[in-house]
Amino acid sequence: MGIIIINFKAYREGFGKQAIELAKIADEVASRCDEYIAVAVNSLDLAEIVKEVSIDVFSQHVDAIDFGSHTGRINAEMIKDKGAKGSLINHSERRLKLADIEFIVSKMRELELVSVVCTNNVQTTAAAAALNPDYVAVEPPELIGTGIPVSKAEPEIVENSVKAAKNVNRKVKVLCGAGITNNKDYVSALDLGAEGVLLASGIVKAKDRKAALEELVGLR
Amino acid sequence: MGIIIINFKAYREGFGKQAIELAKIADEVASRCDEYIAVAVNSLDLAEIVKEVSIDVFSQHVDAIDFGSHTGRINAEMIKDKGAKGSLINHSERRLKLADIEFIVSKMRELELVSVVCTNNVQTTAAAAALNPDYVAVEPPELIGTGIPVSKAEPEIVENSVKAAKNVNRKVKVLCGAGITNNKDYVSALDLGAEGVLLASGIVKAKDRKAALEELVGLR
Amino acid sequence: MGIIIINFKAYREGFGKQAIELAKIADEVASRCDEYIAVAVNSLDLAEIVKEVSIDVFSQHVDAIDFGSHTGRINAEMIKDKGAKGSLINHSERRLKLADIEFIVSKMRELELVSVVCTNNVQTTAAAAALNPDYVAVEPPELIGTGIPVSKAEPEIVENSVKAAKNVNRKVKVLCGAGITNNKDYVSALDLGAEGVLLASGIVKAKDRKAALEELVGLR
Amino acid sequence: MGIIIINFKAYREGFGKQAIELAKIADEVASRCDEYIAVAVNSLDLAEIVKEVSIDVFSQHVDAIDFGSHTGRINAEMIKDKGAKGSLINHSERRLKLADIEFIVSKMRELELVSVVCTNNVQTTAAAAALNPDYVAVEPPELIGTGIPVSKAEPEIVENSVKAAKNVNRKVKVLCGAGITNNKDYVSALDLGAEGVLLASGIVKAKDRKAALEELVGLR
Repeated sequence: MGIIIINFKAYREGFGKQAIELAKIADEVASRCDEYIAVAVNSLDLAEIVKEVSIDVFSQHVDAIDFGSHTGRINAEMIKDKGAKGSLINHSERRLKLADIEFIVSKMRELELVSVVCTNNVQTTAAAAALNPDYVAVEPPELIGTGIPVSKAEPEIVENSVKAAKNVNRKVKVLCGAGITNNKDYVSALDLGAEGVLLASGIVKAKDRKAALEELVGLR
Repeated sequence: MGIIIINFKAYREGFGKQAIELAKIADEVASRCDEYIAVAVNSLDLAEIVKEVSIDVFSQHVDAIDFGSHTGRINAEMIKDKGAKGSLINHSERRLKLADIEFIVSKMRELELVSVVCTNNVQTTAAAAALNPDYVAVEPPELIGTGIPVSKAEPEIVENSVKAAKNVNRKVKVLCGAGITNNKDYVSALDLGAEGVLLASGIVKAKDRKAALEELVGLR
Repeated sequence: MGIIIINFKAYREGFGKQAIELAKIADEVASRCDEYIAVAVNSLDLAEIVKEVSIDVFSQHVDAIDFGSHTGRINAEMIKDKGAKGSLINHSERRLKLADIEFIVSKMRELELVSVVCTNNVQTTAAAAALNPDYVAVEPPELIGTGIPVSKAEPEIVENSVKAAKNVNRKVKVLCGAGITNNKDYVSALDLGAEGVLLASGIVKAKDRKAALEELVGLR
Repeated sequence: MGIIIINFKAYREGFGKQAIELAKIADEVASRCDEYIAVAVNSLDLAEIVKEVSIDVFSQHVDAIDFGSHTGRINAEMIKDKGAKGSLINHSERRLKLADIEFIVSKMRELELVSVVCTNNVQTTAAAAALNPDYVAVEPPELIGTGIPVSKAEPEIVENSVKAAKNVNRKVKVLCGAGITNNKDYVSALDLGAEGVLLASGIVKAKDRKAALEELVGLR
């Protein structure tokens, strides 16, 4: 069994009604396979999606703040209050300062939220692992959204990221992402030592999203 | 009749159940007075609050993006989809780059959303007015959260902001904020030429929030 | 007579020895034509270039700070101390928050430094003009570095920027940039109402930089 | 023998003529003691100070860029060209994104420049160590500029940072900073396992800077 986190990003197809629809598909597919499937959704959708599905729902981001005078920000306490399981942190489209990543990871650990720190290469994976998050998700930015799977284009990044992360912190689990769209890519990722994958357009923007997800988890 | 926008910020008292409670108070008080009252709420709360109240609900922020690969961001289309009336933009706690403010204001105009650009002094008020938003809300940052009302401490900032804004763009309306807590401050702001006020802690963190809002609008 | 500011950017050809060489070329060409020519150089080169040439030297950026605990920052007082004539502000490759642009422009006015605020379209040009800088330089980002001159591709942006700026503040002067490489582009810019141009790769990365600059100012 | 890096920040007393004066004092004191003394100076001063002193000169910051279209930025190649020995990276007053810290550290290693990554606590020290810089300098932000030495106020941060860094990467050396002003603080830092200190106001803003530095290194 592997881990699959579907990042809805700010895709039109990943927002609002289409987000709920996709979350329900993920929920339904998850009930028929052995994989762990979770969704990372927009903050405007989060509360409603949590109510609609039984799979875990993640936030795509939280800010490095406590409650207070922070107009336009969301913190870890808030997403917990809404029923999120955890959050992506430092996605390549939402990179954060090192001190802020640490602040968020530490706070999420206290709150028993699951932290998934995104990184861009082997070295940053090692660094993120040192912060003791639950997961590090390595995604070479140049492959994101290309459909060229990292597990094929740069397998050594996945392998070396797993080694580097475990070397620093053997408790941390490593996901990989970028270009993952089908079961072959997913299985390759697991074979390379990753515990699962982070993916987005391959599912969110697929013509037949249910079919795409079923294929991903090996139901087709 | 003046305009009152209550910014819930990321206050604990302005989030979740307490946010809904406060929005309902604002809704109820609005029904008993001549003032226009709106609330600016957290993105995680927005969809639910829109459903719970009949007053206008604003977002506290939107990002300068279209739909697309933008993990952890919200755009103007999204808040419109959720039923928001408009958004604060460039609050002093969430300052934006000039080009991004322009992007957001222009897009909100197309989408018929109400834009409230926050500024920190007379010159930036004039600059913001040139972007043709619906409102500019001037708030000297050093007074925010102090309880020292801008309308008393620096009345010339309010007066000169109104003049400067109208000089650049006579259609734009000016709000003022920082330190506003009671009816006297509010009336002073209107007397100085502002069309209304933006306020936060004075209501959100008041012991008796209903009483504080009633006093603000002159019902006590 | 028009104004020509050559932005050396962080081009290899615009740094160190090559920067001094190019600044001297600009100095020499300026002595043989009626145009005002200035150079905007890297902070690491600025002090030395000021000593080497008689034309005006600009910084490419200053931070919105006073003297103090600001590791890794430069302020307006510092560039004045080194002999700079002024600075570019808010270049599309170094965009700033609105409040910071205002802080810098106001401080530069006090210090009698020449401020050149870069903008990306008509609306932001109007907004920048409201801050009362000496110059606004409008550059559509999508044309920067393309060799497609703004004065040809989007002449209405130049014309409308001039109108919009003057409408807000008749003292402000408008430059234009993006894709400008030769005398024809330059003359077109002046014909469209600009007082001059901001350019970079067309000169800095030219094979024969002296010839390119001579051609630009009509000496060839 | 320990390591002392004096960060001139953007203090008025750390810029221009006063910077050169202080660099010369540091140079002279270094010649009379066993400590390694270096200075971290403003980019506008860097080239000149390198020429004036024989001690190592550091930049206070470099941007995560190569040569190219990056107006208002400096890169590692540039500071090397000017004779810098290395650079501070990610100072608490100039915090960087994780991916950018990694980019800079890796590039500086290739260029044989000395990298000093600043961090704010034990966890971020471990993370920075994983990036394989030459030094990590841990400075609790709340003590910076206070005169309350970290080695006294929070000795466990220094000890645990050294342990955490070595655990991740035994080649990395740890400095500490914040509130260090005198020989006692300095010796305490070394006793706690640090290889040296990063300090600023205690020397830069001292009434008698030579005396302050002599005292720091034990010459008084």
